[in-house]
Amino acid sequence: MTSPRPDTPLLDTVDTPEELRKLKPEQLRQLADELRTEMIDAVGSTGGHLGSGLGVVELTTAIHYVFNTPEDRLIWDVGHQAYPHKILTGRRDRIRTLRQGGGLSGFTKRSESEYDPFGAAHSSTSISAGLGFAVANKLNDKPGKAIAVIGDGAMSAGMAYEAMNNAEQAGNRLVVILNDNDMSIAPPVGGLSAYLARMVSSSEYLGLRSLASKVAGKISRRIHDAVGKAEEYTRGMVTGGTLFEELGFYYVGPIDGHNLDHLIPVLENVRDSEQGPILVHVVTVKGKGYDPAENSADKYHGVPKFDVVTGEKAKSKPGAPAYQNVFGETLAKLADKDDRICAITAAMPSGTGVDKFAAAHPDRSFDVGIAEQHGVTFAAGLAAQGMRPFAAIYSTFLQRAYDQVVHDVAIQNLPVRFAIDRAGLVGADGATHAGSFDVTYLASLPNFVVMAAADEAELVHMTYTAAEYDDGPIAFRYPRGNGVGVEMPETPQKLAIGEGRIVKGDEKGGKVAILSLGARLGEARKAADELEAKGLSTTIADMRFAKPLDEDLIRKLAATHDVLVTVEEASIGGLGAHVLTMASDEGLLDGGLKIRTMRLPDLFLDHDDPAKQYDEAKLNAPHIVDTVLGALRHNSANVDERVEEARA
Amino acid sequence: MTSPRPDTPLLDTVDTPEELRKLKPEQLRQLADELRTEMIDAVGSTGGHLGSGLGVVELTTAIHYVFNTPEDRLIWDVGHQAYPHKILTGRRDRIRTLRQGGGLSGFTKRSESEYDPFGAAHSSTSISAGLGFAVANKLNDKPGKAIAVIGDGAMSAGMAYEAMNNAEQAGNRLVVILNDNDMSIAPPVGGLSAYLARMVSSSEYLGLRSLASKVAGKISRRIHDAVGKAEEYTRGMVTGGTLFEELGFYYVGPIDGHNLDHLIPVLENVRDSEQGPILVHVVTVKGKGYDPAENSADKYHGVPKFDVVTGEKAKSKPGAPAYQNVFGETLAKLADKDDRICAITAAMPSGTGVDKFAAAHPDRSFDVGIAEQHGVTFAAGLAAQGMRPFAAIYSTFLQRAYDQVVHDVAIQNLPVRFAIDRAGLVGADGATHAGSFDVTYLASLPNFVVMAAADEAELVHMTYTAAEYDDGPIAFRYPRGNGVGVEMPETPQKLAIGEGRIVKGDEKGGKVAILSLGARLGEARKAADELEAKGLSTTIADMRFAKPLDEDLIRKLAATHDVLVTVEEASIGGLGAHVLTMASDEGLLDGGLKIRTMRLPDLFLDHDDPAKQYDEAKLNAPHIVDTVLGALRHNSANVDERVEEARA
Repeated sequence: MTSPRPDTPLLDTVDTPEELRKLKPEQLRQLADELRTEMIDAVGSTGGHLGSGLGVVELTTAIHYVFNTPEDRLIWDVGHQAYPHKILTGRRDRIRTLRQGGGLSGFTKRSESEYDPFGAAHSSTSISAGLGFAVANKLNDKPGKAIAVIGDGAMSAGMAYEAMNNAEQAGNRLVVILNDNDMSIAPPVGGLSAYLARMVSSSEYLGLRSLASKVAGKISRRIHDAVGKAEEYTRGMVTGGTLFEELGFYYVGPIDGHNLDHLIPVLENVRDSEQGPILVHVVTVKGKGYDPAENSADKYHGVPKFDVVTGEKAKSKPGAPAYQNVFGETLAKLADKDDRICAITAAMPSGTGVDKFAAAHPDRSFDVGIAEQHGVTFAAGLAAQGMRPFAAIYSTFLQRAYDQVVHDVAIQNLPVRFAIDRAGLVGADGATHAGSFDVTYLASLPNFVVMAAADEAELVHMTYTAAEYDDGPIAFRYPRGNGVGVEMPETPQKLAIGEGRIVKGDEKGGKVAILSLGARLGEARKAADELEAKGLSTTIADMRFAKPLDEDLIRKLAATHDVLVTVEEASIGGLGAHVLTMASDEGLLDGGLKIRTMRLPDLFLDHDDPAKQYDEAKLNAPHIVDTVLGALRHNSANVDERVEEARA
Repeated sequence: MTSPRPDTPLLDTVDTPEELRKLKPEQLRQLADELRTEMIDAVGSTGGHLGSGLGVVELTTAIHYVFNTPEDRLIWDVGHQAYPHKILTGRRDRIRTLRQGGGLSGFTKRSESEYDPFGAAHSSTSISAGLGFAVANKLNDKPGKAIAVIGDGAMSAGMAYEAMNNAEQAGNRLVVILNDNDMSIAPPVGGLSAYLARMVSSSEYLGLRSLASKVAGKISRRIHDAVGKAEEYTRGMVTGGTLFEELGFYYVGPIDGHNLDHLIPVLENVRDSEQGPILVHVVTVKGKGYDPAENSADKYHGVPKFDVVTGEKAKSKPGAPAYQNVFGETLAKLADKDDRICAITAAMPSGTGVDKFAAAHPDRSFDVGIAEQHGVTFAAGLAAQGMRPFAAIYSTFLQRAYDQVVHDVAIQNLPVRFAIDRAGLVGADGATHAGSFDVTYLASLPNFVVMAAADEAELVHMTYTAAEYDDGPIAFRYPRGNGVGVEMPETPQKLAIGEGRIVKGDEKGGKVAILSLGARLGEARKAADELEAKGLSTTIADMRFAKPLDEDLIRKLAATHDVLVTVEEASIGGLGAHVLTMASDEGLLDGGLKIRTMRLPDLFLDHDDPAKQYDEAKLNAPHIVDTVLGALRHNSANVDERVEEARA
């Protein structure tokens, strides 16, 4: 990994799309090759998303060459394939800071560049956003098209369909480029994917590949003639496309996305077309041009640092198991003895650990594609018919199915189990992937049980507890990454619903009680040790449940301590708010008890090392100590003074 | 409306689908006619959804006749068309209690009947749920198909597409009946709708109508032969369908949904088919068989009580304007002078008042169909390109776009304006339509401004304030129904962001301060009068903002009152939680100040008169008085006693 930077003489002369557009077409092949080399080298040193970017090197080059960015608005769906785009749009000097604290984001981001008109990270938003840009320009009679580049996996999301269904109003100002690499993160699922595969594998496509430059010359005319002739059009040399045409698009493709001689003239014709909206179906290979990636099952979707020559990835230290695997393996074992257990993932089989479950129980494992809405209501249907479904969805992505959680699960009180990975701050993926809001948006729902695991052993217990709970919806959240190294239980334990546990001290009392929810428990322990060292006796409760609250425990702790501090990896509205609400309802606060709530701040935190993020969030042990000391210093005398002040 | 009940001799003998299935096919026409008559009479006396139910009288009859309900799971999408279904499934004796407190729900509901296997009210969930039932039965090798009946409007939602994309795994256990009446509530929009219209208007359809019985006999064979012959199939007598076939369905249709001689044999063949999943395209007329409905623009979608003979609807008393119209008209006026203002509705132009805006500014008004996800991100794109978009979406439906609100709007800090109608409890539509959670799920988001209007004049100010606010996302919520009759402002006023107002008393102090957010202000005033009568001086603040909080005002009120009570038409996690959190952060609670928070209870409240619902929610004036008195009675001595108790 200490090899010298690659030799990139042509790329060295191109720092912006404007400079790119001064090149001759015959120079683009060399530029793309250098761009690919540079990208491999950069990601080798930083880690990050590799395969997706490699697949769009030529497409990135061609789009910026043909379209007038940034006036033409280029929107990369998800945005993790935009590393070559960043290199070509003035960010090459920072490309080796990707995903590092203070460095470039691993996704597109408005604050980073005018060439990123719409940030992303979650999938399937690009057509909707592009339509917004296109319609705004149309209303204002301004130039500028919108180009949305969206993968075939992202097309499985309903949001993309909703946008396509509305695209007609953009006319020729909207260009959708379907980047079909037959992969999202995992192999694709569903009818759409099979349909695209049929289109690509048809003989006409093979013919087209060799004839693409000729075809390209005809596209404009074809498009001009296409009104009312959609049927003829689809029967011509350009195959298929009917699904998109039925939704109102002009369809062009499939086109070899690595052949610049095809891409450039086709995109030029699309750019100059008076008809639209147009969907260009481009076929690419994820990981293209880097053998270790092309030959890997997931095409090096997301990678740690690696050796560019061998492709060998840097190994992380052996340690505690990853939470996702603890979940997947636990669920698989439980399912050995319980044939009602099912698992649902929305295109994240390995990220959620559902792959471990699927290996043991393929018939009860369902990857629904990027379709969280469907996934949750599908789970509700399974539950209504007597199954025990686990919807394993990251906290940030469960936001996509919030109404389904409310309307189909909570209101009907159906026992869907929600395994919520990536709760709290998540490091390099940044604000878009943080799992900040789930405690708040779930614990406000009637009927819901909401748990958070303090460590990987607790996750085992909570998985089992959820499996056995048939009375209504139940969710359990846990962090991204590895556990803390606690001993793993021989047999899972069924937790009493709504009961926390004292992990240090006892109910009899002390000066301070820390009420922890989830994986800040380690920090709470450190803080308690410091407080004890200062002579402040400290109790720690792992609340386990944000809902139902362990009200008995809270009453006891309130009655026997001077200060209660809640700590959680969640936004305002979570455990802290629920404890305060209960305490004020019951008047526990009226007698001088002090409660402080520690939670995620009112900020979207940028990507960084998780420990640093928690430092910025003020949720580490020193902050807990400070909060306790601050509360103890703040006595009634201060308040009386301030009351006087206010009355004056 | 006091006419005698209609004569329904055959229907009187049929109380369950089992009894229905004993009839001869030639009796079904009479039964359907009686069912239609009964339904018109019932809705005439209760009000409710009329047009949709009338459109599916024959379909309802045919499905229950052909399929083995309730073992075969029949799922009505949305469920507001299920009145005939309710009459046929043992609920006829309660049909004149529809949407009344304690009576039948206006939608399907699991707790009402085993014939309602999956409740609904929000659209586009039925295919996902049906797939859950079908797959569960498949896994358990149990009999029972799932039949999802979904309208063409509901098909515009991405969720339906996600489900169709996954439907193949159900095999022949899933039947989707597309009820195409070319209407949702408003006329349809988008590419899909145009596509369906083309299919229905093709000449082959006309041919099919007359030939349907012959065709029906061939469907099974056709379906058996269909593997690998999809193309031939679509070119046969049954037209179109390719979009559905591309997603993995066998397509049958279009079929006249009012002709039982066609419906019965087709459904029998579908039932007996070994291939699947099957989509049956049925064409119906909304309001069928009742002239006043058929001839009305919205086909009597939702109606008050009406005279069955004349169709004349009961008039509501003239009074204050409806909130939705105040919003729509205000926005239209503002847009006269500001060409950046746009309005977006998701298939609710009249319900949101966007129709008033559209009448004045058709080019800047966008009905995206039932596509909240797309609508919000489309608005974000408009905002990113310099427009001032208002996304006008009911509170309960904004849940469908939560991730778009977080990921596309809040994280990017884009100035999308959210006009949130139907906030709080909504009466006859019940729990599924209540706007309970928006304050909680929005005020937890960084960058967001969240307002609630206390009355219709405030709504005018907030609409204007939102229009003028370009610094980030801003939301304002207001209730369903009519305003309170305050004088309307000549010119809208721009509110200072994060500042509340004192509407009674002053900051100098008193015994009690009521902090009201939104439309409970009237109840707060009544409560204050009662408290004053008891000698308790009472201040009322209309907080206006849940976020940012008016912290200065809260500090002042805290310093100069003994008790603070927050009141809001929102769930836990809203204003009350934010006030408590701020107060505990600052130690305002440490000195004996009492805070109580009044909010929606931890329950899904059934449909009823809104005033009764608020009574059940304990959010009316007497409850505010009780809360204040309870807090005042609750002195430190009590607490000390309880501490002693706890220590013992």
